[in-house]
Amino acid sequence: MMDNRKPYQLVSRDWKKENTVFEVNGVRIGEQRMMIAGPCAVENEEQICTITEFLSKLNIRFVRGGAYKPRTSPYSFQGLKTEGLVMLRKAADKYGMAVVTEIMSTDKVDELCEYADILQVGTRNMQNYPLLRALGKINKPVLLKRGMSSTIEEWLLAAEYLLSGGNEKVILCERGIRTFETATRNTLDLSAVALVKRLSHLPVIVDPSQATGVRDLVAPMSMAAIAAGADGLIVEVHNQPSEALSDGEQSLYLDQFAAMLEPVRRIAAVQGRQFDFDLQREPDLVL
Amino acid sequence: MMDNRKPYQLVSRDWKKENTVFEVNGVRIGEQRMMIAGPCAVENEEQICTITEFLSKLNIRFVRGGAYKPRTSPYSFQGLKTEGLVMLRKAADKYGMAVVTEIMSTDKVDELCEYADILQVGTRNMQNYPLLRALGKINKPVLLKRGMSSTIEEWLLAAEYLLSGGNEKVILCERGIRTFETATRNTLDLSAVALVKRLSHLPVIVDPSQATGVRDLVAPMSMAAIAAGADGLIVEVHNQPSEALSDGEQSLYLDQFAAMLEPVRRIAAVQGRQFDFDLQREPDLVL
Amino acid sequence: MMDNRKPYQLVSRDWKKENTVFEVNGVRIGEQRMMIAGPCAVENEEQICTITEFLSKLNIRFVRGGAYKPRTSPYSFQGLKTEGLVMLRKAADKYGMAVVTEIMSTDKVDELCEYADILQVGTRNMQNYPLLRALGKINKPVLLKRGMSSTIEEWLLAAEYLLSGGNEKVILCERGIRTFETATRNTLDLSAVALVKRLSHLPVIVDPSQATGVRDLVAPMSMAAIAAGADGLIVEVHNQPSEALSDGEQSLYLDQFAAMLEPVRRIAAVQGRQFDFDLQREPDLVL
Amino acid sequence: MMDNRKPYQLVSRDWKKENTVFEVNGVRIGEQRMMIAGPCAVENEEQICTITEFLSKLNIRFVRGGAYKPRTSPYSFQGLKTEGLVMLRKAADKYGMAVVTEIMSTDKVDELCEYADILQVGTRNMQNYPLLRALGKINKPVLLKRGMSSTIEEWLLAAEYLLSGGNEKVILCERGIRTFETATRNTLDLSAVALVKRLSHLPVIVDPSQATGVRDLVAPMSMAAIAAGADGLIVEVHNQPSEALSDGEQSLYLDQFAAMLEPVRRIAAVQGRQFDFDLQREPDLVL
Repeated sequence: MMDNRKPYQLVSRDWKKENTVFEVNGVRIGEQRMMIAGPCAVENEEQICTITEFLSKLNIRFVRGGAYKPRTSPYSFQGLKTEGLVMLRKAADKYGMAVVTEIMSTDKVDELCEYADILQVGTRNMQNYPLLRALGKINKPVLLKRGMSSTIEEWLLAAEYLLSGGNEKVILCERGIRTFETATRNTLDLSAVALVKRLSHLPVIVDPSQATGVRDLVAPMSMAAIAAGADGLIVEVHNQPSEALSDGEQSLYLDQFAAMLEPVRRIAAVQGRQFDFDLQREPDLVL
Repeated sequence: MMDNRKPYQLVSRDWKKENTVFEVNGVRIGEQRMMIAGPCAVENEEQICTITEFLSKLNIRFVRGGAYKPRTSPYSFQGLKTEGLVMLRKAADKYGMAVVTEIMSTDKVDELCEYADILQVGTRNMQNYPLLRALGKINKPVLLKRGMSSTIEEWLLAAEYLLSGGNEKVILCERGIRTFETATRNTLDLSAVALVKRLSHLPVIVDPSQATGVRDLVAPMSMAAIAAGADGLIVEVHNQPSEALSDGEQSLYLDQFAAMLEPVRRIAAVQGRQFDFDLQREPDLVL
Repeated sequence: MMDNRKPYQLVSRDWKKENTVFEVNGVRIGEQRMMIAGPCAVENEEQICTITEFLSKLNIRFVRGGAYKPRTSPYSFQGLKTEGLVMLRKAADKYGMAVVTEIMSTDKVDELCEYADILQVGTRNMQNYPLLRALGKINKPVLLKRGMSSTIEEWLLAAEYLLSGGNEKVILCERGIRTFETATRNTLDLSAVALVKRLSHLPVIVDPSQATGVRDLVAPMSMAAIAAGADGLIVEVHNQPSEALSDGEQSLYLDQFAAMLEPVRRIAAVQGRQFDFDLQREPDLVL
Repeated sequence: MMDNRKPYQLVSRDWKKENTVFEVNGVRIGEQRMMIAGPCAVENEEQICTITEFLSKLNIRFVRGGAYKPRTSPYSFQGLKTEGLVMLRKAADKYGMAVVTEIMSTDKVDELCEYADILQVGTRNMQNYPLLRALGKINKPVLLKRGMSSTIEEWLLAAEYLLSGGNEKVILCERGIRTFETATRNTLDLSAVALVKRLSHLPVIVDPSQATGVRDLVAPMSMAAIAAGADGLIVEVHNQPSEALSDGEQSLYLDQFAAMLEPVRRIAAVQGRQFDFDLQREPDLVL
């Protein structure tokens, strides 16, 4: 089954044996496990500040928040745009955190590079090739989400657009694929994580919130993702999920998020890895 | 099953009872059945002229051809870009045909509007919302292909972006969805055509070439599409399929294409409809 | 894409060039187009008699009705079993029709052979190999539905179980596959029909009722199926769909069923084919 | 998304709050984590003895091996049938292990009950309702694999057939679902495991071999499964995978299997759980 034709090159482990590792905000991505957290969308100054402050107390290094939101309906909340970026940057700076946010079109590359530390390409844009070409030329890391119905090969080829353009700071993100099952929003494909870690040298993280769409499944799927070998997690967290302007039902309460850090830390420890939020501690003696 | 929430409005038959009909190159789209044909990509002057001339002799009114090609691999042929547009326009003008070609990004809207009569949004860009917003403001028809794993609801909502932006000249195009079946490139979803014709007033056409990926299935699926109520077809045709720079195995030979016109004409006649290539003839007495 | 390994033999056109044709109730299946109609389940004597009488007046030759019903829930109506078979046989005999009904297990083969003219293997049992082995040894035609998530290759291999057992009277039936789309119950895969007609010599019919789950889509999908080259149709019809014990929302009203005969007859005529219900008439001059 | 209609009853946590726990071969299934291992098919006496002896030295309590094999092609090896059952039972008895093997039809229930300790219903038979009804009446545990394209609701309803028949000793097994992705044989749906543990009181185990079809993915997916909350694993192991009569490419070498026990043991320990093969040891102090 595992495809041996391999139409990609630069992303392949055949091209580069060792893991790609690069540093953002003091975290060696691809080596230490990274935790990105925050709301689906930046909604207002109070919301983003409350959440960011809370995250910073847990020693979280990366805050996420959407300013440009790809929405299925033209009538849904489309994000605060530049205003949201300003709020997010300000909150992150106050607490020494790095910003992860989504880019949807080539004409926003300059603006996003100004406000963000990592630019996220969402699932609907994984095959937006003009956008990938533009992001291949910037000097910022790109978080490339898997298309919701993209094969692993297509995903790696999308990353190949970035690397062949000159940008080697690429983080892949599995976020669930579209299947017949409707009990969860998508079907989290963790074998893809384990497989891509073998096929490619790039870091791979997991988004259990988008994948499941169900708050109670975020913690067990986070543990499973780390056990499968993922290099990190990106999790939706909100101070008032029931009031969220988008994706409330899959956002963790602040307490829930705090409570899942210990179990994922332990799973990482089983594999001899440390999470970034845990760096100030002495590593566990592996059990 | 049929969804009654209906989060879309302007595209709905509840909003507008009668079929949307608009004229391009003398064809009343949405009323007469339209036939779009041509190569996957414009490759050189000779190729596009040979094909266009052949099509014009069959009284085909619309020629398709890609100049900007979305390709899975960064190393594949990406299209002749502006040069290809110039060739395509020139050939079409010589034979009195209208041009259908793909747009991939907002920064090409002006150029495409100059060269094309109908702008095609490909399956990978169905949820490229900045692009849809831009195309909502132009005064050219848009051919909106269904995302390869988009639900009917998402597809209609993508069209809603166009209509809510002010552009009512929208043609929907079913082109196969991604399923577990690998014997065909995609799975042509003709029930979607019949269902969308009930849910929406917009014209719906079918791309049997992309859907099946198999040359021999193009004619039977074209007949099935028209029988299901489709308003037209978009078919890949090439003068030398075995030499094509892309999608050769699904492109019809010129002869094959000519041979399928009569059967699809007859199926349309059963439904009391005429194809655009058949307009100079007296309509059949319905059998 | 079309698979060239072909692990099946007896079902292949490479093995036998000409179409398999066999006669049931005066209809040459595989040559003439067959129409099977009737309720999802036999519910009571009045119901099955009313429907059968109505069908017989339209010259329909095959009545379907479930006596043993595979139901997702153990608490749903499971069919009238032997009692239902008796009712169905009696009604069919009264009006000179043949009986098509489902078999679910090997221990009912003798009983079903007594009451039915064609034994249907349902979608959930397509890979019930002990059942297929048992049906390979009987001298009755078998209607083999495609598994709801079976590939074309698996479907043909299931038929190979029947033929290799000695039973060559096999009718394949496409009934929709399971995909991500939820607007229809399944996704009718008509390219599978066209493809299987090329790969195999066996007759292939289509079940538009199970495929779509939506009454209004049955007629357009029936037309599309015949246009795609299907050898017949199996359609759910009920005298009181709103009162049906199962599948009411996809069952046609008697009137609706009567009204769709003319359009499907015409589509068949375009292809130079006659429907069995139309045999007493002179064939159309092909238009 | 999580379905609140819940058409099932006896399998639901609403019906029974606490986990179902029952003992087989000294293991409290549903409480301790169980490990089932062995070849896809029993091939000969030497093969099954070699593997069973090896497993017994690792303190594995359950040996699997197919005697009746559901094969896609009628021409593939179909299992040694009774002969295979005798060999498997003999090997298991010699080393004090319990037998897990597949049942495909109602007429083999008595025979299987004689030779096996746990009867497995394979993915193709999950909706073989006559078989489920028969197994609802026996006094042996049933391992119910999820249909390869069954929803979680359909899977729980299949289990409801067993419980409503009187058999409460049911183990659910996630074994991958069919999706568009072809890099793995199926897509392992671990969110289904976490979700079913919430919806139902029944034990849920995972088959990483069938799910991935790729030997190198078995260990990481085993770890992920336990991290997601699975109650155990069923793994294909062979003394000579390259010579195996079926599923060789997904079978672990004996060494590989031995090597994965320690990591899965540690992941279970993080969750305060012990594996059955580890029961003679003192539990870890949870880290």
